[in-house]
Amino acid sequence: MDLPALQQQLRDFVAARDWARYHTPKNLVMAMSVEMAELVEHFQWLTPEESVALAQVDAKRDLVEQEMADVLLYMLQLADVMNVDIEAAILRKMKLNAIKHPPKV
Amino acid sequence: MDLPALQQQLRDFVAARDWARYHTPKNLVMAMSVEMAELVEHFQWLTPEESVALAQVDAKRDLVEQEMADVLLYMLQLADVMNVDIEAAILRKMKLNAIKHPPKV
Amino acid sequence: MDLPALQQQLRDFVAARDWARYHTPKNLVMAMSVEMAELVEHFQWLTPEESVALAQVDAKRDLVEQEMADVLLYMLQLADVMNVDIEAAILRKMKLNAIKHPPKV
Amino acid sequence: MDLPALQQQLRDFVAARDWARYHTPKNLVMAMSVEMAELVEHFQWLTPEESVALAQVDAKRDLVEQEMADVLLYMLQLADVMNVDIEAAILRKMKLNAIKHPPKV
Repeated sequence: MDLPALQQQLRDFVAARDWARYHTPKNLVMAMSVEMAELVEHFQWLTPEESVALAQVDAKRDLVEQEMADVLLYMLQLADVMNVDIEAAILRKMKLNAIKHPPKV
Repeated sequence: MDLPALQQQLRDFVAARDWARYHTPKNLVMAMSVEMAELVEHFQWLTPEESVALAQVDAKRDLVEQEMADVLLYMLQLADVMNVDIEAAILRKMKLNAIKHPPKV
Repeated sequence: MDLPALQQQLRDFVAARDWARYHTPKNLVMAMSVEMAELVEHFQWLTPEESVALAQVDAKRDLVEQEMADVLLYMLQLADVMNVDIEAAILRKMKLNAIKHPPKV
Repeated sequence: MDLPALQQQLRDFVAARDWARYHTPKNLVMAMSVEMAELVEHFQWLTPEESVALAQVDAKRDLVEQEMADVLLYMLQLADVMNVDIEAAILRKMKLNAIKHPPKV
């Protein structure tokens, strides 16, 4: 996935709509948390088994995918305005997690 | 960013800790929403200007980056268990957004 | 506010719709977090000043009120199924907060 | 529950700490959503049955109660700064819900 290219496209999208003034880190994070809840909403009344089965139903998975994308689009924009290297952040956190949670023997 | 390689690493990480039984889509989404709120927490009392300035303070941006990574790690795992192609989902949503929100002339 | 009477009404409402089986604490908390985000949504792009001014616009405050009520209705139901005394919980937390955050002199 | 008395106590608490300038509706809603996620966190990895059983374990229910109270304390403060009558809002929403979701026959 070419993150810088996606982020450039998003910057152009935002500029063409004159939305940049709304895109403070604070607002992007709030908007992302709202999209996250729209993702949660699809699962709120499901049993664990139903939540597993949902991925097999194309029409439902499709809706979930869109919510996942909404979260990620704000994440890419947040990273962009904050100058965060997403890939480096992920790799670093995986190393920290491996230390924090040693594997069971 | 090589998503399939990251997802394979995460699968191995989860298997080594015997956590897969907890990783239903429902639980992953819940856990992701909790990490999202930890990201929100860094910004809750800031003015818009302070939220912009935060990215300039390395120690603070570092903490924010870690919360961003936590959200993304669960997102990668959710995509993996649901067989969602993240890149395709993002590209598709960008097209839908361009239709939903036509640019200002 | 007569909480036990409200909770009895909600129990009757849920029973009449055969929803009790969905109302595990886990699901109620998830659903409440979704309603919370609908409350957040009203404020996501506002400046601090606009968020203060919103309360003066009846039509907007009305919508915010409804989201607040949605969160509270799930909270009353969660307290009911978990046998939590909301008023006691609030009073106890206020005492803990007073110790945790001593007033500035 | 005497809401106006609680809200007066919270106003005094906030004034004594010089926090009122942080308490815009936008910030209160953000902070409330963070407390909500701390409530969610207690349930994220539980099965439905474990989430029901949690209420029987005093030490665990005690922690959940505290998170519930944290959400409610911000809700009381939001209602206060926005001049929302919480009880009226709840009663009105219950009527709207009864119309929106007619009982099963």
